[in-house]
Amino acid sequence: MRTSRLEAFSDGVLAIIITIMVLELKVPHGHTLSDLVHTTGVGLLTYALSFIYVGIYWNNHHHMFQLVDRVSGGVLWANLGLLFCLSLLPFTTGWMDESRFEHTPVIIYGVNLLAAAIAYYVLQTTIIRQQGPESLLRHAIGRDLKGKLSPIFYIVGILSAALIPGYAGVAIAVGVFVAAAIMWIVPDRRIEGEVRQADQP
Amino acid sequence: MRTSRLEAFSDGVLAIIITIMVLELKVPHGHTLSDLVHTTGVGLLTYALSFIYVGIYWNNHHHMFQLVDRVSGGVLWANLGLLFCLSLLPFTTGWMDESRFEHTPVIIYGVNLLAAAIAYYVLQTTIIRQQGPESLLRHAIGRDLKGKLSPIFYIVGILSAALIPGYAGVAIAVGVFVAAAIMWIVPDRRIEGEVRQADQP
Amino acid sequence: MRTSRLEAFSDGVLAIIITIMVLELKVPHGHTLSDLVHTTGVGLLTYALSFIYVGIYWNNHHHMFQLVDRVSGGVLWANLGLLFCLSLLPFTTGWMDESRFEHTPVIIYGVNLLAAAIAYYVLQTTIIRQQGPESLLRHAIGRDLKGKLSPIFYIVGILSAALIPGYAGVAIAVGVFVAAAIMWIVPDRRIEGEVRQADQP
Amino acid sequence: MRTSRLEAFSDGVLAIIITIMVLELKVPHGHTLSDLVHTTGVGLLTYALSFIYVGIYWNNHHHMFQLVDRVSGGVLWANLGLLFCLSLLPFTTGWMDESRFEHTPVIIYGVNLLAAAIAYYVLQTTIIRQQGPESLLRHAIGRDLKGKLSPIFYIVGILSAALIPGYAGVAIAVGVFVAAAIMWIVPDRRIEGEVRQADQP
Repeated sequence: MRTSRLEAFSDGVLAIIITIMVLELKVPHGHTLSDLVHTTGVGLLTYALSFIYVGIYWNNHHHMFQLVDRVSGGVLWANLGLLFCLSLLPFTTGWMDESRFEHTPVIIYGVNLLAAAIAYYVLQTTIIRQQGPESLLRHAIGRDLKGKLSPIFYIVGILSAALIPGYAGVAIAVGVFVAAAIMWIVPDRRIEGEVRQADQP
Repeated sequence: MRTSRLEAFSDGVLAIIITIMVLELKVPHGHTLSDLVHTTGVGLLTYALSFIYVGIYWNNHHHMFQLVDRVSGGVLWANLGLLFCLSLLPFTTGWMDESRFEHTPVIIYGVNLLAAAIAYYVLQTTIIRQQGPESLLRHAIGRDLKGKLSPIFYIVGILSAALIPGYAGVAIAVGVFVAAAIMWIVPDRRIEGEVRQADQP
Repeated sequence: MRTSRLEAFSDGVLAIIITIMVLELKVPHGHTLSDLVHTTGVGLLTYALSFIYVGIYWNNHHHMFQLVDRVSGGVLWANLGLLFCLSLLPFTTGWMDESRFEHTPVIIYGVNLLAAAIAYYVLQTTIIRQQGPESLLRHAIGRDLKGKLSPIFYIVGILSAALIPGYAGVAIAVGVFVAAAIMWIVPDRRIEGEVRQADQP
Repeated sequence: MRTSRLEAFSDGVLAIIITIMVLELKVPHGHTLSDLVHTTGVGLLTYALSFIYVGIYWNNHHHMFQLVDRVSGGVLWANLGLLFCLSLLPFTTGWMDESRFEHTPVIIYGVNLLAAAIAYYVLQTTIIRQQGPESLLRHAIGRDLKGKLSPIFYIVGILSAALIPGYAGVAIAVGVFVAAAIMWIVPDRRIEGEVRQADQP
């Protein structure tokens, strides 16, 4: 089975997730700058963070499937698992924002990020297993440092929101989620290099 | 007429249906785990079930159109009929969830699943008739055991929600809908095999 | 400029329009069949009508662009004009349904259908002008009977809702809109024939 | 990395943005023409303006990527930056409309347009830098008069809404935003010419 339609469907779902989140932004009732800041200010930053996360997954997905020619039924379902986790982001983002960063919603947001990371790892492993010992993808990701680091980031964030009371725990958690996003924005040069090599005769 | 644009349009509609359902998930007003469980807990499972059903249809649709080269006007409309039935899933899912699994909404959800199964069967039959006696698709689906079993599942679910009073009838119905989904998640190896054969010289 | 990206963008917009309308369907507050019929019954039929109309436009758009190789800036904007008219359908459908088929909303729905028909005609004319005297599309549409008849249908519907008081005027209007849709569902065999010819050497 | 998937993803996001805005249009509670004009009249014009702006960006994006073969990670993120700015348009459009063109919401709408223009400029510059001294795109855009003029338009609009009190300031601002849109609707003949040349041997 070719990957083109799987990519097209995933692009569609990711495009909708990334855009639908803006519907969660409440339009202020008043019409001054202060109304905007109070009603939407925090929401805008939360939206930006989740937008960046979906963008990261799209980028990584895009890179990964450049090294995949054919997909099996298992890959289709692993991919749907990843899309399911990401499709919950508008909901967890909305709750975190609406609660004004209360502890539980921040924890749940972290759990959502962690679930997406695990689903991505499962998808990657399913593809590598399907490609066999000569797997281009396994070669490309190498030690997969970022893939292994980011769940640790999310767990640290979840634990600090769960265990450290008051504003500090939540602030550390959100800071860690932002840091993990920044780590990912640096493009995945290893796979890019591999693609360049694969293109060469 | 080539199938590429029909596939792209169907992918778009299915991607939107699968993602739009998350908008039905109500963000809890409180901010504790118990608020989340009470407000969204059931909804999340319902959402997961409908997500899996749309995923199943996308997978089967994907497999089916691998064996189709050209489509007639009849196939276009049969395909739109299937998309129409599936586009009602966010609505019937929302009602079933909001009513907390009352009898009628569960019946209507089952009717929606049954209608989608019939629409899929009509689409399949239209394609086979168009392909003529040498139809690759007819050859691939063989006895089409799963396609014939699933309407029976849905009817059993509908009848148990309609006839068995109290919680039991509804529980059996939902259990049957879950079972039908699990049956489908097992990939359609017959068509995969056929595609592999068709690829070989 | 190639048509592929214009087709992909139009497919995306039409897929969203056709799916977003279901969000207008109000989930009943009660949980009996009678609640469903009272709250959603009419809405479901209205949704089905608009779904069919968007499906018709998608089919015709699909057929038309099979005969187009390259598009100019004028065609891009004529196409956006058509998408704009169709993007208003969820709104006019919602108002017609919510008002329970009051005269003005039915008139506005008819005006929306008329505007879309005019925008389609403008798009068709722009393409024919660009293709020049040897235009494949002009040859294919021939006398374009359905394209010329449907605005008359919409005008008759608008006038009967505007001029005939009481339920009768509205009923005639909706009947005429349904009749125009049925006329279009019959596939456009002329263009299909032309495509088949163009494919042959 | 090929541009096809970046184009497909951007098309998806732009298609959703352009269509989601119609959800901001409030369906009138009454059912007379005067209800429609009072509830939706202004909103419809605002929607049309933002629809045209998204259409302009889609057209320009389409033209630009005709001259791009391969994209780097930097281009992916510059593109996501542009999509982020445009994804806020439904929100700023909604606020401007709901406030009935109060000063601050009009300013924020202008800031949104300005941010999108800057993001587009950044994307264009990133591509040109990647393409190197032989950049087809740099050659095509030439002096890029419209690209340089439109931020000035937006700044004039923002300033007049900010500094001129009463209805006049807002009216000038909106007039300037409309004028900038009209300037862009004239198709970008320079790039079209370049594409035609690039197609020739």
